Amino acid sequence: MNDELRITPRSADFAAWYNDVIMRAQLADYSPVRGCMVIRPHGYAIWELMQGALDAMFKETGHQNAYFPLLIPQGFLAKEAEHVEGFAPQTAVVTRGGGKELEEPLVVRPTSETIIYAMLSKWVQSYRDLPVLLNQWANIVRWEMRTRLFLRTTEFLWQEGHTAHATSHEAEEETLLILGVYRRFMEEWMAMPPLTGPKTEAEKFAGAVRTYACEALMQDNKALQAGTSHFLGQNFAKAFDTQYQTADGALDYVWSSSWGVSTRLVGGLIMTHSDDVGLICPPRLAPIQVAVVPIWRSDAEKAAVLDSAEQLARALREAGTRVALDDRDGMKPGAKYYEWEGKGVPVRLEVGPRDVKQQQAMLARRTGGKAPVAVAGIVEAVQGALAEIQDDLLAAARQRREDHSIRGVTKEQLIELMEGAGGFAYGGYCGSPECEAGVQQASKATIRVLPDEEFRSDPAPATCVWCGKRAELEAVWARAY
Amino acid sequence: MNDELRITPRSADFAAWYNDVIMRAQLADYSPVRGCMVIRPHGYAIWELMQGALDAMFKETGHQNAYFPLLIPQGFLAKEAEHVEGFAPQTAVVTRGGGKELEEPLVVRPTSETIIYAMLSKWVQSYRDLPVLLNQWANIVRWEMRTRLFLRTTEFLWQEGHTAHATSHEAEEETLLILGVYRRFMEEWMAMPPLTGPKTEAEKFAGAVRTYACEALMQDNKALQAGTSHFLGQNFAKAFDTQYQTADGALDYVWSSSWGVSTRLVGGLIMTHSDDVGLICPPRLAPIQVAVVPIWRSDAEKAAVLDSAEQLARALREAGTRVALDDRDGMKPGAKYYEWEGKGVPVRLEVGPRDVKQQQAMLARRTGGKAPVAVAGIVEAVQGALAEIQDDLLAAARQRREDHSIRGVTKEQLIELMEGAGGFAYGGYCGSPECEAGVQQASKATIRVLPDEEFRSDPAPATCVWCGKRAELEAVWARAY
Repeated sequence: MNDELRITPRSADFAAWYNDVIMRAQLADYSPVRGCMVIRPHGYAIWELMQGALDAMFKETGHQNAYFPLLIPQGFLAKEAEHVEGFAPQTAVVTRGGGKELEEPLVVRPTSETIIYAMLSKWVQSYRDLPVLLNQWANIVRWEMRTRLFLRTTEFLWQEGHTAHATSHEAEEETLLILGVYRRFMEEWMAMPPLTGPKTEAEKFAGAVRTYACEALMQDNKALQAGTSHFLGQNFAKAFDTQYQTADGALDYVWSSSWGVSTRLVGGLIMTHSDDVGLICPPRLAPIQVAVVPIWRSDAEKAAVLDSAEQLARALREAGTRVALDDRDGMKPGAKYYEWEGKGVPVRLEVGPRDVKQQQAMLARRTGGKAPVAVAGIVEAVQGALAEIQDDLLAAARQRREDHSIRGVTKEQLIELMEGAGGFAYGGYCGSPECEAGVQQASKATIRVLPDEEFRSDPAPATCVWCGKRAELEAVWARAY
Repeated sequence: MNDELRITPRSADFAAWYNDVIMRAQLADYSPVRGCMVIRPHGYAIWELMQGALDAMFKETGHQNAYFPLLIPQGFLAKEAEHVEGFAPQTAVVTRGGGKELEEPLVVRPTSETIIYAMLSKWVQSYRDLPVLLNQWANIVRWEMRTRLFLRTTEFLWQEGHTAHATSHEAEEETLLILGVYRRFMEEWMAMPPLTGPKTEAEKFAGAVRTYACEALMQDNKALQAGTSHFLGQNFAKAFDTQYQTADGALDYVWSSSWGVSTRLVGGLIMTHSDDVGLICPPRLAPIQVAVVPIWRSDAEKAAVLDSAEQLARALREAGTRVALDDRDGMKPGAKYYEWEGKGVPVRLEVGPRDVKQQQAMLARRTGGKAPVAVAGIVEAVQGALAEIQDDLLAAARQRREDHSIRGVTKEQLIELMEGAGGFAYGGYCGSPECEAGVQQASKATIRVLPDEEFRSDPAPATCVWCGKRAELEAVWARAY
């Protein structure tokens, strides 16, 4: 058991703290397979809640799930020039099957555009077959040199949406629709408010015309690319000859989008909210929202407190709350509190003999604060507390992001910020790849997004942070995961 | 579009019929990857409903989901002697990663016992850590020579449960608990009643002490192994040194089980119920339970029937029914009926101008029969029809199974049956591998199960079908997928 695991303070070593939080909460573990992790039940339960919420949002917006093969003929990747350049170096390659050398090696999918467009070419004949709005929940393999639990692993789980449309406009609208879905999910479920906007050419997906991203600021003031939505133009349609007959009888290539979020989101959740005690999990994504801990010293006390604790747990479960009743024998209440705190359970209800007499329970919040609540109003009290915690976490994360966003930075300020406290640096950008590379070399910061309108500074920055010429755009720089 | 696909009659060519049903219902398609299929949205939606039902049953019985790596070091497989012998010839092997030859090749998981026991050795220290009750939803690769959509594909989707216990008795109880869960799921959800019981040594899972199976009889009177639950004894615990400290301080190896069902179940569902028109899907697993088809000739009629159809659809959706409202323009009602029938939708509601006037709709069942129902009682009528169809499908499948089960067969009857109509042949078995092999050579039939008590014949068969010596057991033979 890992109960006694010490957690390194964030201030001492953020990366060590991150791993310690994961180990204490038993979210994941290292596997004997290079770069691959095991997602343990408590971590997987968070991912399942994320999947449930996202899947419902995808279906509400008209998407259907499907499943495409894991193994992709190596030649498929090569059909889109930028795509193969981006992904070929990262692939795991199957060269033997059923005891024989394969004639054509198979790549373990690093993403599924190629195999999906090979199928769409077969399925899409006419404008009446459009749009195609598909999503797939799948595992992905990308050979990574330096891996970190949840954030960067050789294998990870994700969803990948793939859509095909009759017009460029429709495909770009779809790309932005999903960017909005991702942002809403991150804010409303993860309490993790991202910046959104397009990426620069240098940072876009290999094969896309334009990539849009959600970028969230972690507690160490580094950015996490938490979700991306790509407008693919006709790139893959041309590579795989996915043509359709238009309403007026002409032939055209379909226009497409692809988009994905992954188990990396679990890492983002951890790094957005947790503290030096362990995981803090937003209530809507907490596998256990309430831990009920009965406290007794004698057998006589035990019967009464257990009875009361069971009633509370039942009432909460019936109201749709996810509850653990911790009636383990031979373990002190303090040790139980410690375990549930480490696991990020938002609310703890303590029920001792005095509480039973007074028809109450002590409600302790993982985020701080403890007060008695009457048994009669327990469901409302707990649900109210959970909703408040959810809102407070979002507000705190947004405040932290704004506290660590500096606008109108100069070159010197940008470099100083990136070598010091970190954060989001908003500044002017002339649009040239040379300036983008210059900033990166000097500061190890990249342009995370060209921020969407609501995030932009007013007035807009006048000059490029790097070359001092007229700024064509505003950019947000940060060091990133 | 595949609307005009003809379906080969079952009587002409069962295998061709099976493929035609899948193509017309758009459940799956062949992919350009050898032996791998694409699961299309309508097929994947059936799988998602299966997953939802099974996942709830696993969680109700105390299991938790987790996720283990796809890629397994080749040496792991070799640690359990029978296991490697069974699976090594079927593996796909990754020999290159990130552009380099790997020092140790990685096998794409053909099943996950080995990687899971490598982790359990780390997690399980004491009897207090037991039982471990894990399940994983994952993709699996087994190199297959002859593949068939859903039934046998190089890659397939499945769940694999893995549990570890302190005693042999507990592990075997778990194995049987899950066999019961599988059977209940197949009966109550799939309307596919299986025989259950242990397999012979020759037919057991590579690495198990004992394998229990659910075997269902398809419409061509061949058996489908639809789910298996394995008692693994201490085989994998010893191979991976998974030891724990017992309550009295000694060291012992854990006792374990593993169990799985896969997307093969979708194939079983198709072959149990469908007819020469297309798919018949049991209502509880039908992605669309009701298709509402408004019928109009003029624009004036259209407004009224659409309004009524939308009200019906809304009322049904609010009652939790999965509904498609088919208001497509420029498509005749007959063509719509044909499409929904091919997709296996259990109930169709037709709403024409006369129906609107009479405040009714025509309720047509996919399994036959059509009658008017009053709009006022539409929810009860539809839900009643769905429940009846579900029950009728199960009863019909059970009747068909019994009609094609012959008890107390002689050697000659068994061979004749297998070369003729097929079915389940119950007969005496002395228990020797030679007799098992003899029957198989003569009839191409294998022992599907040694039937559980409730399926056994009374009186028990006296002599072995093959050698004529005293029967130690009763066995059920069939040709199988």
